[in-house]
Amino acid sequence: MADRPAWCSDIDGVLLDISGVLYDSGGEGDGTPIQGSIDAVKRLKASPLKVRFCTNETQCTRQYLVDKLVRLGFPISLDEVFSPAPAACQVIKRKSLHPYLLVHPDAVPDFSEFDLTLPPDCVVIGDAANAFTYDNMNKAFQVLISQENPVLISMGKGRYYKEKDGLMMDVGGFMTALEFAAGCKAEVVGKPDQGFFLGALQDMQVPVEKAVMIGDDILNDIGGAQRSGIKGVQVRTGKFRPEDESQSVVTPDGFVNNLAQAVDLILGN
Amino acid sequence: MADRPAWCSDIDGVLLDISGVLYDSGGEGDGTPIQGSIDAVKRLKASPLKVRFCTNETQCTRQYLVDKLVRLGFPISLDEVFSPAPAACQVIKRKSLHPYLLVHPDAVPDFSEFDLTLPPDCVVIGDAANAFTYDNMNKAFQVLISQENPVLISMGKGRYYKEKDGLMMDVGGFMTALEFAAGCKAEVVGKPDQGFFLGALQDMQVPVEKAVMIGDDILNDIGGAQRSGIKGVQVRTGKFRPEDESQSVVTPDGFVNNLAQAVDLILGN
Repeated sequence: MADRPAWCSDIDGVLLDISGVLYDSGGEGDGTPIQGSIDAVKRLKASPLKVRFCTNETQCTRQYLVDKLVRLGFPISLDEVFSPAPAACQVIKRKSLHPYLLVHPDAVPDFSEFDLTLPPDCVVIGDAANAFTYDNMNKAFQVLISQENPVLISMGKGRYYKEKDGLMMDVGGFMTALEFAAGCKAEVVGKPDQGFFLGALQDMQVPVEKAVMIGDDILNDIGGAQRSGIKGVQVRTGKFRPEDESQSVVTPDGFVNNLAQAVDLILGN
Repeated sequence: MADRPAWCSDIDGVLLDISGVLYDSGGEGDGTPIQGSIDAVKRLKASPLKVRFCTNETQCTRQYLVDKLVRLGFPISLDEVFSPAPAACQVIKRKSLHPYLLVHPDAVPDFSEFDLTLPPDCVVIGDAANAFTYDNMNKAFQVLISQENPVLISMGKGRYYKEKDGLMMDVGGFMTALEFAAGCKAEVVGKPDQGFFLGALQDMQVPVEKAVMIGDDILNDIGGAQRSGIKGVQVRTGKFRPEDESQSVVTPDGFVNNLAQAVDLILGN
């Protein structure tokens, strides 16, 4: 993507994935900003374009994530970040259910509006990481198998993500495990759900044809955005693997080396 | 199944599932024989019919399982028991691979012929129970994702089984989790694989049309047997749930309350 595609001059809003695009997570500390990304976000926000951050991050609360990104140097505020937890809470409330949370312990505060001492009749699954124990998986399974119409709400369905130690299993596999064992189909909130992308666009009042999503996950970022009518640009950072470029069922509207290069193209620098 | 079906008089060989048919596992001790099952096995073995035991049990070695059943009072010997571990070993040897074992610690000795210190290039998954940690799942995932053609050998693909504390997730869900994350398809050894049933029939020299499988798992015992041309009788013990009788995609050749009733019908008592 050396040349600037024609559609770049017709963009009013930009959706950015966070992990693998802004920074690489993993290890003890806050993670490491990806070369040029802090400056790229600053340039985007100084431009006439609108910007929102669309993440499937569920290992912590939304507030914790924003605080971490600010510490790393990114100019970002809570109301610019779209993540699956609020969407999951909406589904639970609409159905008047009581959730069993198979989520990361640090993400539990995002569900503080629910009384978790009541007997659960639905399951919310997120990127629980080390909380994906056999015991916790069985508790979720037993809630589902005891219901006539099991409700499994999955915060994303990613295959894997990248940490310092290599590729790590994301929530998607554990979601399919529960689907298989309990004989049910999960309701996915977050990317690649169309409602998730459209909610972020509505918030910045940008129509789909004037929006672009920049992400490292070819299926959930790029494929999900394109199915919603949004352009999708794949970065070669984060979980990107060369096979994504040669063998994927999704064809992005562009490949770039990193966020900085994407912003160069979109802003026409 | 009050009346004796006509096919019962034409049976030369009987395949028996173990857990949920002979005994209920779970808890601290060896488990509990199901009412009438010890006597039923004795009557079958005293008849002209041939008997083999076909189990997907992979929480312990085959020898340990046989010793436990003998302690419970069942007349059973090692060479009568067919379980997935020997079949998994055959696949690994045929492909000249080195396995990563995502199995129950008590089942590891069944794989003593392999040098487990070598870098693994395939994964064997069994009913690992508490060994299904996020860390172990990731180790298996990382072996698979690093291979151009990932080899995942699954010892069974059961959805769940019954223990004292209720229904527990079986290997099938965790198999699908790895399939989803690594983008591969597992090779299943054990039930419902046709080769597994046919191997047991060959061992007792009985043709498929003169054989019956008695089990509590409608998909893996009954469905698997029927797809191999073997009759399938569903017991209402073990993991059986009323939905299996009214809503299943599989229609058994008969339903019985327990193994004792099945043996009554087959022997024509």
